Amino acid sequence: MTSEVDRPEILTDRQQFEGVFKVVRDELVANGRVQGLPNDAIEWFSNNLDYNVPGGKLNRGLAVVETIRILKGCELTSDKYFQAAVLGWCVELLQAVFLVSDDLMDSSITRRGRPCWYRNAEVGLIAVNDACMLEGAIYWLLKKHFRTEPFYVDLLELFQETMMQTELGQLLDLITAAADKVDLCKFSLERHRLIVLYKTAYYSFYLPVALAMHLCGITHQPSQQDPYGVAASILLPLGVYFQVQDDYLDFAGTPEQIGKVGTDIVDNKCSWCINTALAVASPEQRTVLEAHYGRKDAESERKVKAVFEEVGIREKYAAYEEAAYERIITLIEVIPEGGPGEDGDIKLQRAVFKSFLDKIHRRQK
Amino acid sequence: MTSEVDRPEILTDRQQFEGVFKVVRDELVANGRVQGLPNDAIEWFSNNLDYNVPGGKLNRGLAVVETIRILKGCELTSDKYFQAAVLGWCVELLQAVFLVSDDLMDSSITRRGRPCWYRNAEVGLIAVNDACMLEGAIYWLLKKHFRTEPFYVDLLELFQETMMQTELGQLLDLITAAADKVDLCKFSLERHRLIVLYKTAYYSFYLPVALAMHLCGITHQPSQQDPYGVAASILLPLGVYFQVQDDYLDFAGTPEQIGKVGTDIVDNKCSWCINTALAVASPEQRTVLEAHYGRKDAESERKVKAVFEEVGIREKYAAYEEAAYERIITLIEVIPEGGPGEDGDIKLQRAVFKSFLDKIHRRQK
Repeated sequence: MTSEVDRPEILTDRQQFEGVFKVVRDELVANGRVQGLPNDAIEWFSNNLDYNVPGGKLNRGLAVVETIRILKGCELTSDKYFQAAVLGWCVELLQAVFLVSDDLMDSSITRRGRPCWYRNAEVGLIAVNDACMLEGAIYWLLKKHFRTEPFYVDLLELFQETMMQTELGQLLDLITAAADKVDLCKFSLERHRLIVLYKTAYYSFYLPVALAMHLCGITHQPSQQDPYGVAASILLPLGVYFQVQDDYLDFAGTPEQIGKVGTDIVDNKCSWCINTALAVASPEQRTVLEAHYGRKDAESERKVKAVFEEVGIREKYAAYEEAAYERIITLIEVIPEGGPGEDGDIKLQRAVFKSFLDKIHRRQK
Repeated sequence: MTSEVDRPEILTDRQQFEGVFKVVRDELVANGRVQGLPNDAIEWFSNNLDYNVPGGKLNRGLAVVETIRILKGCELTSDKYFQAAVLGWCVELLQAVFLVSDDLMDSSITRRGRPCWYRNAEVGLIAVNDACMLEGAIYWLLKKHFRTEPFYVDLLELFQETMMQTELGQLLDLITAAADKVDLCKFSLERHRLIVLYKTAYYSFYLPVALAMHLCGITHQPSQQDPYGVAASILLPLGVYFQVQDDYLDFAGTPEQIGKVGTDIVDNKCSWCINTALAVASPEQRTVLEAHYGRKDAESERKVKAVFEEVGIREKYAAYEEAAYERIITLIEVIPEGGPGEDGDIKLQRAVFKSFLDKIHRRQK
């Protein structure tokens, strides 16, 4: 007999969260049976869920749980944890909707180290319908688990509005930078900010926190002190800052840091780097960028990178990062501090935003 | 000067309904401006709405208005008419979501006499996102016009559930009858019924009536007498019956009747006709069907049609039609009649269903 190592019973946050996915997946599949769907359709939907929903970094889903812990200031009861995790998985489902359809629209090849869903031989364009079914799963889960909560309609509206914001962002991106047609005239730093705001910041930063706030019973207020307005005023700039980092690391990060080789330049992406370079480029530099951006060859990519270095993109990024950090920390410190109110109501707290900011500030990967 | 013909001021139902589209389209576009979207994105969304939403037969949208008139038993006030028409356009928006994405998935060529949306050169796969934005428009309109109504959450759930039912139907259809792979083993009359039930009956028949019922203040009841359950128990079989007619007319109708040349046989559609033929075919007839169904040549189509005639599809259809009619009329006559209750509450009435049934029974086009 080989000796056995004691395995601790304590699960990591991620393992505990993943355990809830199994529950909601089984609920969704069981509903298919109740509705009288044939086995092949149930199996298809089940595969759609398993292939596309778990397996990512789960940052957005885990952020819901983590934010609720911070707001409550204590560990969650198992019922509350389950509700929090269901909302977290609804955010991951939303993410899956966008990944499945964006990969198809962008003709991407791989996702999370496997072929994109639509690239599986039997799937193809059925992926369009599969993405819609993942969206439907969100509303089914909200109804099942939150139907009787006073904030149920807020959850429905929040998901619907976030869906629409993100689709607007995807539209902006698609009509600004077609993969097969390079036209830098459409690029600008303002256009970049709008794309990132709509396509990423709402669903990645505002949505998880707003869901956590609803689950903690924080209500909308009809004033400038609306806690949801306050949260958005911090989290949306934070989301833009995060994406600018992402864009910069695609250019400047090593493969060891970012786990991949950056392809924004050859892919004609409307990235912070190209827009920053265009904003200050001389006519000669602009000519180089126009001739070589979005071209599928290494020599073109090298020339674009040389212009990025010439215009001092590294210094500009360092300046952007510090200014963004200062701006956001100032916004955070305006929030009145004081813990739970005398009536026991949970109040929005600086710690929620500091937790996000600390994870992001000066990240190298 | 040429003499002028007096033009009557009275608008047809259709013209009045189309007038409301202009209003909701302008509201949706104006919201894009308020949100700070750039002009090219607003113009794209506006074109998406104009190309894909109006221009159909509008049967589903007009059915909402017509059902409310029947339920109320009188003409609508202009405020009520507007609300009814907004819900009607939400149904037409839902239809547009499915048409845009189904045309893409089915590689269809034309729709309403023009190229399918995705076939416009600048659109292509962006159509996936455009379909999602049309869906988002539904929820935006519901929030704008019904946010304070007691049945607001019912409207949200009804659209979400109908969306999911229809996507399930589309999935069933796609995995049963791939355009490029003929496999009649997967076909059956039960499979056909399920596809039609989910893909057509919910959104085309139940949805418009359920919306009208909500607008008239009819509430869910926790019993077998739930008026929504009663409506579904009639409208879903009615929707299946309607689609069987559609399938039959694709085979038996003349181009003069149906306004097109039927292509279900060459397109490998899981139609009522092929399933009925398969259910009674001799081994020899089945061999012919398997060799020639879904083939893109006129000779194969002719051979399939010959088997349809041999198995007596015309008589079988006549028998199906009369049986369906009898079954549905019986269901309708079980509804307790009596007009509005003493308390003035509006009650579900036989006339709603008779109106649908009369339009459908023995139709030749």
